[in-house]
This record gives sequence, C-alpha cells and structure tokens, in this order.
Amino acid sequence: MNRAEKIFAKASAEHKPDAIVLTGDDVRFYATGFYSTDGYVIIEKDRCILYVDDRYLEAAARDLAGKPGMEVRRLEPVKKILRPYKRIALPLERITLKDFLELRDGKEVSDCTAALEQSMAIKDADELDKIKKASEITDDAYLKLLPRIKEGMSENDCAAELEYLMRLGGASGPSFDTIVCFGEGSSVPHHETSQKKLRFGDVVLIDFGCKWGGYCSDCTRTFLFGDDGRHAIFKSMYAAVLEAHNLVKQEVVAGMSCRAADGVARKCLKKYGLDKLFTHSLGHGIGVNIHEKPTLSPRTDMSSFLENGMVFSDEPGVYLEGEFGIRIEDSVYLENGTLKSLSKTDKSLLIL
Amino acid sequence: MNRAEKIFAKASAEHKPDAIVLTGDDVRFYATGFYSTDGYVIIEKDRCILYVDDRYLEAAARDLAGKPGMEVRRLEPVKKILRPYKRIALPLERITLKDFLELRDGKEVSDCTAALEQSMAIKDADELDKIKKASEITDDAYLKLLPRIKEGMSENDCAAELEYLMRLGGASGPSFDTIVCFGEGSSVPHHETSQKKLRFGDVVLIDFGCKWGGYCSDCTRTFLFGDDGRHAIFKSMYAAVLEAHNLVKQEVVAGMSCRAADGVARKCLKKYGLDKLFTHSLGHGIGVNIHEKPTLSPRTDMSSFLENGMVFSDEPGVYLEGEFGIRIEDSVYLENGTLKSLSKTDKSLLIL
Repeated sequence: MNRAEKIFAKASAEHKPDAIVLTGDDVRFYATGFYSTDGYVIIEKDRCILYVDDRYLEAAARDLAGKPGMEVRRLEPVKKILRPYKRIALPLERITLKDFLELRDGKEVSDCTAALEQSMAIKDADELDKIKKASEITDDAYLKLLPRIKEGMSENDCAAELEYLMRLGGASGPSFDTIVCFGEGSSVPHHETSQKKLRFGDVVLIDFGCKWGGYCSDCTRTFLFGDDGRHAIFKSMYAAVLEAHNLVKQEVVAGMSCRAADGVARKCLKKYGLDKLFTHSLGHGIGVNIHEKPTLSPRTDMSSFLENGMVFSDEPGVYLEGEFGIRIEDSVYLENGTLKSLSKTDKSLLIL
Repeated sequence: MNRAEKIFAKASAEHKPDAIVLTGDDVRFYATGFYSTDGYVIIEKDRCILYVDDRYLEAAARDLAGKPGMEVRRLEPVKKILRPYKRIALPLERITLKDFLELRDGKEVSDCTAALEQSMAIKDADELDKIKKASEITDDAYLKLLPRIKEGMSENDCAAELEYLMRLGGASGPSFDTIVCFGEGSSVPHHETSQKKLRFGDVVLIDFGCKWGGYCSDCTRTFLFGDDGRHAIFKSMYAAVLEAHNLVKQEVVAGMSCRAADGVARKCLKKYGLDKLFTHSLGHGIGVNIHEKPTLSPRTDMSSFLENGMVFSDEPGVYLEGEFGIRIEDSVYLENGTLKSLSKTDKSLLIL
C-alpha cells in the first residue's frame, strides 16, 4: 500500500469520501513524494492525482512515471478539478480558511486530519531510509565540527560551521533553526543562537538537524568546553539525564501509550529530584516536518499509543535557570516492538 | 505610527473592529518585532498586546520594554483573551480554519487581510534598515563566493559555500532554498540545486538571499564560467535582459500601477523578440516573507499601485528551453518617488 492508499484506507474507515483533497506543501509532498509550492493532491480509492502548474509539470511527470496509481495533471480551476466528486474529505485541522471555503463549495465535507496524521506517523521503508540518511549526515557533521570548536568562536559561527558541514554532506538545509548555546544560555530551552563567544569551561548545548530527500533529522548534544573544576553539579545532572535517555530506549516498546513513554524518563529524573527541571515533553514525531505525531508528553491523550514504524525524538532535558541546561537527544524508531537509535554519536560526557 | 497602529488605522477605515487578532508566526512578528512560534497578537485602538507562553514570556517582556503601546502577557485560553471584544477583525485569507473557528466563536468578524498586507508592503525605517543589512550580507557573500567557484564543483557545494558565507556574515539563514544552476539547468526557473558538476563554458545562474533581523534579501546573478566561444546568443540575450532590468530602475516611479511596472520590462524585451521567453512576473514584495505584496505581474489587478516605502524585486528573465536561462535580479525600494537599489554588486556580463 503506498502512502496515498494508506491515507484513503484510514479516512474511509470513518467516512466514505469519494476523494481526499490535500492542499499544504508538506502533505502534498508526503502523499506523492514530489515537492511543489502550489497545487492539489486528489486521492481516490484506486489512484492519486497530483495537479501542478506548468513550472512543475515536466519534472512531476518524470518523477512519478512508473509509480502505480499515480497520475500528474496540469493545474485547473479547483471547481473543475472537484466536479466529479460529491463527498470530499479534507484535513480540517491543517487547512487554511481560504482553501476550505474554495473547496467545500457545494460538497459534503468530512475531516481526515486524524487519518492523515496517523498515516504520516508510521513511516514506510523509503521514508525510514531518508531519515536514516539525514541522521547519518547529521552525525558526520557533528564529528567534523568538534575539532573546529575553538575558544572565542561565536554561537553563530559554530552554527554556520555545522550547517555548512551538513550541506556539504548532501543535506538540502537545516531541518529547523540550529540552536547553539554557550554557557548559561543553555538553561533556556528555546535559546536564540547569538554572537556570544565561547569561553574555557563553558557548557555547550547544540540542537541541530538537516533535511535529506525532504525528510528531517534531529539531534542534541551537551558537552563541556574544558573543565574548569566547577562542574560537579553539571556532571551529576548529566549522568541522570543520560540514564533517563537510555532507560527510554530500553523500556519503551510498541503498544505503550505516548504518555507512559514520557513517564519513563520523568520517573527516572524524579529519583534524582530533577523532574521539576524537566520542563518540556520527552519527544515528538519526525518526518517530512520536524514536529509531527506522535507527541510523547505528560499531557498526551491516553488513547495515543506507540506503533512500529514510528520515528520520534528521545530528548529528556533539565534546566537550571541562569546556570546551565542539559539535553540529550537521539532520533529513534520502533521496529519489531523495540526502539532503535538513528543517532549514532557518543553520548558519554565529552570534555573538549 | 508603529506597525500595529498602522494596521489598525487601515482596518478601521472599512470596519470598526474592537480588536484585530493575529495568529500566524510571520504576522505576529511583523506587528510586534518579537518572534515566537506560538501565541496571539491583539491590536486595539491604543495598544498592542502580545500573548506568549512561558518559554517566551521573559524574552518578550525584555524585548518590548519601553516600546510605547506594547504589552506582553502570559498566554491564556483564547476564549478568555477575547472576552472584552465584540467585533474582531481577522486576516481571513491568511488564517487557518482551526484558528478561525476558535476565534470567531460568538463574535462579529470582519476581514483585515488587505489592511494587513498593505501595511506590510510599506516598510518603515527600521524594516528598511534590516533589509539593507540582509542585502549587504548577500552582496558580500556573493563577492567572496566568486573566487571559490572551481571547475568540477557541484551545484550543491556552491550553494553550501554561499549559504556558509552569508551565515558567517551574520545571517540567521537563507531566506529561501538557494538556487544554483550550471548549464542548461538554468533554463528552468525553478531548477532544483543538484549534484551536477561545473564545466568550462557553463552558464551559471544563482538565485539567493538571507535573513537578518527577521527580514529577507533576494538577488540573482547569471554569468559565464569561462567563454568557450559558443555564447554569442547568450551574450546578446544577456544585454537585452540587463537593459530591461535597468529600464525598470529608471522608469518605474511611485504612483505607477504594478502591472505597468511589469510592462516596462516586458515591452523592452519585446523589442528583441524575447517577451515570450519572459515566462514569469517582474517582481514581488520582500519583507518578513520572501514573497509579499506588491506583485508586479501582467495579471495584477489594475487598482494596485506602487508607493514610497515598498521593497520589491526587479527580476526580468528569459529562458531558452534545454539551452540556458538568464535572470538578473536586484532588490529595490521606492523612496521620494524613484527606485533605489539594495543590491550593489556589478551586473555587467561576468566571465569567470
């Protein structure tokens, strides 16, 4: 079953649409594997039609040639495209008001948000390969970055080096704004990379990833730039976060609720009195977008469960305000019931 | 008048909203100058309130302190935030269905898309400074790139170098996916940067820009990597495109319709029989987003006029299918009635 068929099957379990209509760049790419900045994807029971304008027509036809059930057509007014259909399904939680008003015109409309997002959460072999490749590029760039980190370098320059190395590795770009924190900036989970300069003894936190073949990677490493002897608390907290990170990899299995998975890390940090400093969720799905389903959080609906084929982040973190932050993140996937890591670089405490 | 007041004044000319509500990341940043990935901006007659969650609260308060009429508050349920207002204005063409349904709940709703987009199109001094800075970084990176371009280098590596140089120049990242084309790939206006290697005699087309302070730059240069003696047609077409580009800078003035501005370049290319090969619009507005109002196109509504303070691209291009393409693009702005260029690098034909 290709991705379009998967979405249609899930959407048909609830409603009986004649067609599913997708409008967002990300979901059109997801369903067809072809990226364009304009157009529609129409999914019927037995086929998937990509409508694109003249700029993309030739490339799309070449790209989708020989893929069973996939057709490419020249973009036409949406009224004309939808003429054959009475009942359409739209991902109502992911659509603009403008698209909704244009598309629903005279149709019966049902919501396929859940069908789409559940389908996107379970990766097929091709998607997993792309995320693996993006993760390899990310790992390689990190290893090449380490010897380039020097005293006096700015956070911005460090991010520039890392993005450059990922780009040379074949990435099309970063999968999100690279976060580089030197020193106490690391205590802010959403620190903005700045012109701050690296000093001996600084805690360094780097949260980064790239896109390859349209899919994202995501990784965070925290280490010391030299040991000035004032890092006893940091070191003990680092050990606790790493224990929580590793425990997730051991204990989280297919069939577990997303909330329980988050609880594995939270309970481990509680042993050390650090659960109050773990101020965010354990993880998020990774795919075409850097944040997708599943959401591994203490607030996730108890009916959300982890399944084989899901790719998500395992990223416990603790933040001591004004002092430092520690986050250790690997991208992981569920295969044959258990977690495998996509990030391969070492996580034992590094002192550069 | 700050940007929030400008939007409110324009929206009030048509309707009488108690408040304007903004939800998109780009427009929240535009109205307040503070970037966050979540929250609401409420614009009343005399003040602008930014609602953000705990992650951003401290930084937002620091950033907006002392800005008259600006307040920061902790994010609350939208029902509670909107309680004081009966009549709200929303940019209906830029809002998600989900946000619309949540916000309109029991309110009188009017559309402020035009008020918002017209306001965004006219840059204030601070915005112009940021676009100038982004353009300077872009120019510098281009000049530093030229001596690094070598035979056998891939399009992807060339894009990597250019993005790295912009990043080192202080940019937070590229303002769109960098386009690098070697040889006949340049004949596709939306060519995807690939692993193709540079050969002696290739036409090189580079379309690139960066973000600085949240604002975009945009520039395109076309040149030859060595002259293999087979470029007579290319050279004559280059001269025609450059003439069209320069004529726009001379003839386009404040008060001219957007369509007429496009016509200046189109008419010039027609003299040389090249107007049919000019397959896209002359230009687009540049600001927080890489594509905004005004749109300088043969299809733009005749009631759209150019005004002082607008920043847009001047980018005529011709594309000879399967052979080569030529596009020459500067970012420009209207000041005291006439066009000034933000891109300063040379456009006379370069043979590397």
